[in-house]
Amino acid sequence: MPPLLTEAEVRERLGALEGWRRDGDYIVKETRFPSFKAAVEFVNRVAEVSEEIDHHPDITIVYTRVSLSITTHSEGGLTRRDFRLAGLIDGLE
Amino acid sequence: MPPLLTEAEVRERLGALEGWRRDGDYIVKETRFPSFKAAVEFVNRVAEVSEEIDHHPDITIVYTRVSLSITTHSEGGLTRRDFRLAGLIDGLE
Repeated sequence: MPPLLTEAEVRERLGALEGWRRDGDYIVKETRFPSFKAAVEFVNRVAEVSEEIDHHPDITIVYTRVSLSITTHSEGGLTRRDFRLAGLIDGLE
Repeated sequence: MPPLLTEAEVRERLGALEGWRRDGDYIVKETRFPSFKAAVEFVNRVAEVSEEIDHHPDITIVYTRVSLSITTHSEGGLTRRDFRLAGLIDGLE
């Protein structure tokens, strides 16, 4: 497992993403879709890339709104794996 | 929209479901799957029946665990639509 990122590294990497914010040990993003169906389709694309890199966000769907929360549980905080996953997710939209 | 159910009606209908509990204005169920992939497949089946009856649960996926929360927002509580959706979801498993 990669080591925890420093505060400065987290800030820098957050700046390179689109619409993510930090929430404690997680980075989180909320996206709104035109329909519930579109929200679920997005979740399926997120699930696919998550499986590919074996790193999985917590996912919440509330009608047309999808919230994603990412952390590295085994390290108890944020690592480069989390930002890799977030970057891949940004590439999906 | 159907009217809110009485406390007695909620209790009776909960008793007819499998694994659901009441949480305030919601009925909720948590299910564990053998894999993340299986969890996401279940969410897709839930999404399909939700679209069919145009009533959508809040859905949370945390790795292999799926949590569903159902209420009738427009009525501010539980109606027979919520139990109809829960019953259809039980039929999927």
